[in-house]
Amino acid sequence: MLFGRVAGTVVATKKTSTLEGLKLLLVRNVDAQGRDAAGYVVAADSVGAGLGEVVLYATGSSARQTEVTDKRPVDAVIMGVVDTWDIGGETVYEKYPSAVTADV
Amino acid sequence: MLFGRVAGTVVATKKTSTLEGLKLLLVRNVDAQGRDAAGYVVAADSVGAGLGEVVLYATGSSARQTEVTDKRPVDAVIMGVVDTWDIGGETVYEKYPSAVTADV
Amino acid sequence: MLFGRVAGTVVATKKTSTLEGLKLLLVRNVDAQGRDAAGYVVAADSVGAGLGEVVLYATGSSARQTEVTDKRPVDAVIMGVVDTWDIGGETVYEKYPSAVTADV
Amino acid sequence: MLFGRVAGTVVATKKTSTLEGLKLLLVRNVDAQGRDAAGYVVAADSVGAGLGEVVLYATGSSARQTEVTDKRPVDAVIMGVVDTWDIGGETVYEKYPSAVTADV
Amino acid sequence: MLFGRVAGTVVATKKTSTLEGLKLLLVRNVDAQGRDAAGYVVAADSVGAGLGEVVLYATGSSARQTEVTDKRPVDAVIMGVVDTWDIGGETVYEKYPSAVTADV
Repeated sequence: MLFGRVAGTVVATKKTSTLEGLKLLLVRNVDAQGRDAAGYVVAADSVGAGLGEVVLYATGSSARQTEVTDKRPVDAVIMGVVDTWDIGGETVYEKYPSAVTADV
Repeated sequence: MLFGRVAGTVVATKKTSTLEGLKLLLVRNVDAQGRDAAGYVVAADSVGAGLGEVVLYATGSSARQTEVTDKRPVDAVIMGVVDTWDIGGETVYEKYPSAVTADV
Repeated sequence: MLFGRVAGTVVATKKTSTLEGLKLLLVRNVDAQGRDAAGYVVAADSVGAGLGEVVLYATGSSARQTEVTDKRPVDAVIMGVVDTWDIGGETVYEKYPSAVTADV
Repeated sequence: MLFGRVAGTVVATKKTSTLEGLKLLLVRNVDAQGRDAAGYVVAADSVGAGLGEVVLYATGSSARQTEVTDKRPVDAVIMGVVDTWDIGGETVYEKYPSAVTADV
Repeated sequence: MLFGRVAGTVVATKKTSTLEGLKLLLVRNVDAQGRDAAGYVVAADSVGAGLGEVVLYATGSSARQTEVTDKRPVDAVIMGVVDTWDIGGETVYEKYPSAVTADV
């Protein structure tokens, strides 16, 4: 899994039937320090992630192992909203104390 | 999933039987800003995407989760035509208002 | 799927039983303009592709969705010989009119 | 599989039900010489790996082939703690003799 | 599949039960010309490959399609020892005539 930040919503009216009803979010990559990094992915949302939130996403066949993505043509899924992580015992990212910057 | 722009059609007469009847499109990568980016993929079309349209494509085993690609040797599928997406609340790409450039 | 050019044949006598009887070809990557590009892959041949031919290959679990590769430890398969493709309406690659260069 | 070093713990309270109960670790990549390298991955822990330990992790669908990750939306799993490896007969990494540096 | 050269052995005593009994080898990447290249992978050995030998390895779910790796958390497998390959009719690599260099 990788960290990403929810940047926006993707709308596609004309789509294959197995994609109906999924919420698709644009996710910018985030590095191990919590900074925005190069690259993006469009991921199905399985947790109700909000704009600007740092999330965990999984790719490949593992992206189909949630209730909402089962048997769908989806190769990336958001399956968690990150509260915090640390590196070597020091907190690197925290959802609540530090304001999440909106400039994605 | 990633954004791509339909650049053209790929014809292969001599092919494995499980590939028969699929429409194969050449898709150029598109970045999160809607600009053409490096790289391409040849994807099966499951939605009737047109030349120049910005589409969503999925790769890997997820590319076989549509009616037309089920159990076929296909590792990329177009499963939606993108109408619009936004970043931080601002519209970055819109299918209809802004003319889609044809220089792929 | 990606474009590749058949560069040669790979021989491996000592191999796992599930690999027996497969033809393994060395495939050089080809870009969207039909030019040789960086990178290669060793792919199982499911169509009888010839030396120098531009082919389509699929990777990952999708590479096992042909009769010859079913349930084998193969992560790349050639499943078509490309006749032609176009970009924005202009033919970029044609198998017959233009001689295929052999300098792979 | 690749080598990684356990850098820290990731906490996500709001998550998809199939992710409940998994321990998620932040893993920094380690090169073939045992040095920290670019890139990270968030992996499920199936062996009780400790902070600073060099581990083996697997990605993709193979990450679901452990008891704790079966049928979960997990695309990376730690499935071993590395004791030692050698290159050309010389030991490159040893868990016990040389102190593991903590500056991840 | 890709070419690699067996560089050494990886030992991990503490591991998930489904990994027991597998031989894990450190494999350096080899390019299409038979030269050592950037990158490595830790692969399960399904053929009894020896130190310094050039091998073929497969990744992803295909790495589980051998008797020894079936249903295990293994994302890379050595499934053949390469005897020879050619590019455009010229032999590029031969296991026996040319001595295999040991400086991996």
